[in-house]
Amino acid sequence: MRIRKKPWAEEELAQNDHVMKNAEALKGKWREYFGNDNPIYVEIGCGKGGFIRKNAEAYPHINFVGIERNLSVVAVAARRTTEELPNLALVWDDAKKLSDFFEVGEFQRLYLNFSDPWPKKRQYKRRLTYRGYLQSYREAFGDKGEIFFKTDNRNLFEFSLNEFCADNWKLSNISLDLHNSDYEGNIMTEYEEKFSSQGMPIYRLEARYGMEEEQKKD
Amino acid sequence: MRIRKKPWAEEELAQNDHVMKNAEALKGKWREYFGNDNPIYVEIGCGKGGFIRKNAEAYPHINFVGIERNLSVVAVAARRTTEELPNLALVWDDAKKLSDFFEVGEFQRLYLNFSDPWPKKRQYKRRLTYRGYLQSYREAFGDKGEIFFKTDNRNLFEFSLNEFCADNWKLSNISLDLHNSDYEGNIMTEYEEKFSSQGMPIYRLEARYGMEEEQKKD
Repeated sequence: MRIRKKPWAEEELAQNDHVMKNAEALKGKWREYFGNDNPIYVEIGCGKGGFIRKNAEAYPHINFVGIERNLSVVAVAARRTTEELPNLALVWDDAKKLSDFFEVGEFQRLYLNFSDPWPKKRQYKRRLTYRGYLQSYREAFGDKGEIFFKTDNRNLFEFSLNEFCADNWKLSNISLDLHNSDYEGNIMTEYEEKFSSQGMPIYRLEARYGMEEEQKKD
Repeated sequence: MRIRKKPWAEEELAQNDHVMKNAEALKGKWREYFGNDNPIYVEIGCGKGGFIRKNAEAYPHINFVGIERNLSVVAVAARRTTEELPNLALVWDDAKKLSDFFEVGEFQRLYLNFSDPWPKKRQYKRRLTYRGYLQSYREAFGDKGEIFFKTDNRNLFEFSLNEFCADNWKLSNISLDLHNSDYEGNIMTEYEEKFSSQGMPIYRLEARYGMEEEQKKD
């Protein structure tokens, strides 16, 4: 499961300015770090960083934080983030610690892309859209928040639909075949590029709470 | 689209006790008709009646009303309803008239099975899960209600998920492949038997509003 450890990984993380050396110390201070009051969007499991890097390039007035626990993978993300992207930060750590990294309400959107499906029935509590996680995201968001979720795994998507609904999130832009839908502006992950090119459907949804007014504006 | 007219169809409807000759006259009087206070579940587009007939057999303490606008199809449903099923009534009419047949709150559940997908984009308002229909169902239900929806059409299911969510129904038991899921007690329609035997996935959901307390009991 784990990618072979890259010998240059730790050195890459140590010398790369986009990698936060002590993310806990930034809790409550991310605006200070980024030097502006722009919204902060977080990706849990950013992998090699293709998605969040392309977002950072496309939306310079949003700050992005990518969290990845796999050393060798986040090292690739760091190495590829050579461009001048002051609005992108990478964190090598476990996303279970979200509330260790952010004050309540400090970030406004969460991306979950192609999370581990944990396919065995007894593993359901490990899936990042399990209601226990959803509740921990709520605690991190505070009075409102939104999650954008994508996966190629039908069972994980079905599970996630049910979990979001059970936890009373308001769903929209649900797609059962993203690449044959009307949805515009999709930014692909490395994984998504590979699997969608093989014709596999990609599932996607947006989940929100406490944002009824914002929604009406859409 | 329309099945060839069966010459015996009108005669079948005329002589079959399960077929309501004047459903409008039963508005507000269905409990009287059935002779009890049991819940009433309605299927819009009951086709040849396999689903609702099997339900009526399985659940004698629920009253079922199947509505079908296609004469030749509802005639088949009538012909096959020869068993002693006092808890099953068939209506040959257009389901658009739901409020002509029932007082507000007179029925408690609605089944939509394999509704016409109306696949062209400009036809979306004809789909029975279009939010305009959802609102008309709400008006018919009154302060609470539930819809059980099944289809083999992925695009219709995707559309329906979004419509139910946009109209703030609470979804549960969402399945993207019903026949390979844990859901128990599924009763198949004729159409479903044919298509699921070919390995095509069947999509299903339950949508509710005003029933938070009942849900917690599940």
